[in-house]
Amino acid sequence: MPEPDLPGAAPASVPGRPAAERRPVVGRGEKVRAAVLDATLAELAEMRYAALTVDGVARRAGVHKTTVYRRWKDRDALIVDALTGQLAADIPIPDTGTVEGDLRALARGLASWLGGPSGAAVLAVMLSEAVQAPGIVEARARIFEDRLRRAEPVVERAVERGELPAGVDPAEVIKALAAPLYFRVLITAEPVDGAVADRAVVATLAAARHGAFG
Amino acid sequence: MPEPDLPGAAPASVPGRPAAERRPVVGRGEKVRAAVLDATLAELAEMRYAALTVDGVARRAGVHKTTVYRRWKDRDALIVDALTGQLAADIPIPDTGTVEGDLRALARGLASWLGGPSGAAVLAVMLSEAVQAPGIVEARARIFEDRLRRAEPVVERAVERGELPAGVDPAEVIKALAAPLYFRVLITAEPVDGAVADRAVVATLAAARHGAFG
Repeated sequence: MPEPDLPGAAPASVPGRPAAERRPVVGRGEKVRAAVLDATLAELAEMRYAALTVDGVARRAGVHKTTVYRRWKDRDALIVDALTGQLAADIPIPDTGTVEGDLRALARGLASWLGGPSGAAVLAVMLSEAVQAPGIVEARARIFEDRLRRAEPVVERAVERGELPAGVDPAEVIKALAAPLYFRVLITAEPVDGAVADRAVVATLAAARHGAFG
Repeated sequence: MPEPDLPGAAPASVPGRPAAERRPVVGRGEKVRAAVLDATLAELAEMRYAALTVDGVARRAGVHKTTVYRRWKDRDALIVDALTGQLAADIPIPDTGTVEGDLRALARGLASWLGGPSGAAVLAVMLSEAVQAPGIVEARARIFEDRLRRAEPVVERAVERGELPAGVDPAEVIKALAAPLYFRVLITAEPVDGAVADRAVVATLAAARHGAFG
C-alpha cells in the first residue's frame, strides 16, 4: 500500500542523500519513522539480534506492525536502517580543508565511537550470532557500505586538492583508516584512543601517497 | 601434583620457544597432551564457547579430568593452547630472505586461513558470546599475542638487512599487515584472497618505510 508522504523504505535506502534533496515529508510520517527506529535500537540493546522481532519493535514504538512493514521490508532492513542512522549521527563526515585534518577527524570519531557505549553495543550485536542469524552478515556489510559512501568524498576532495595521487581508490583509503581500529577492538583487545587514531592516519596517508591504494 | 615429564601448562605458556629447548618429554605425556588439545578443537567446532567443559573434553580425549587440570589451569587456558597450536600449524612464520617475501607469505597464509574452515571456525568461536563468556576476550588477545611474538622476527630481520628503518615497531608492522584482512572478514564481508594479501603488504611496507610505525 503506497504512502504519499513517505514511500516505502526509500529514504532508508539512500541515506547518503542530503535531507534537502528528499521529498518533503509530513510531520507525522517522520515522527513514526523516528519512533520505530528508536524502538529498534532500544530492543537491540536489550536482547539478542536473533530475538528481535518486528512485533516487539512495533509494540515498543506504539504503532501497528503493518505500519512497520509498510516502511521496511523485513526485520534486517529495519536493523540496518536504525544502525546506519545511529552511526551517521555518532561519526559525522568532516570537511576541514585538508586530507590530514579530515582523516584525523574521521579516525578520532571512529575511535570514540568504538570505545563508547553505542559502538560497543552495535559491535556486540553485529558480531555475535552470525551462525544463527545469517542476515546479520549482509546487514553488517550494508551498514559499512553506507559509511564508506558517506566518507569517500573526503578522499575525492584530497585528490582534487592534489594531496593524494589521482587514481587512488577512496574506498580502500577509508578501509585502511578504519581497519587498525576495529582490529584492536575485535582481536587484540587493546584500547583505541586518539593516539591510535592518529597513527592510523599517518600509516594510511603514507601508504596512499606511495601508490598502495590504486 | 607436579609431573616430572610435563610440568603443568608450562609448554603452553611459552609456545614460541623452539621444541629443542624444552625439556625432553616422555612419549605418553605428549600423546595425552595432543589428544586433549585435539579433543578441545573438536568440542569447540561442535558447540558454543560457553558450553565447552573440561569434563566434555576429557571424555572425548579418553582421559580423566584431573589429567586435564594437571596440565591446564582452567577451560580458557585449554582453549587458548588449542587454538594457538592450530594457528601456529596453519600459518607458519616464513624466512624467505626479503621483508617483502616474508610479509607476502605471512599475509597470504593469513588470507588462506581466514578463508578456510579452521579460520572460520576459530573466528566464530572467538567473536561470539563475548558477553556470556568474558574470558573469551582475554583468550583472543593472548592468542594474537602469541602470533605476534612468533612473527616479530620477520620485522627484526628486515631492520638488520636495512630494508626497514631502525626503530620501527615490529608489533605495529605485523598488526598493520593483519588488520585489513580481518577487517574484510569481520566487517565488510568481502573475500580475502592473494590480491588482498598483496595489497596489505604494499600498504604496510609503504607506511613502515615512511615512518608510520615508530
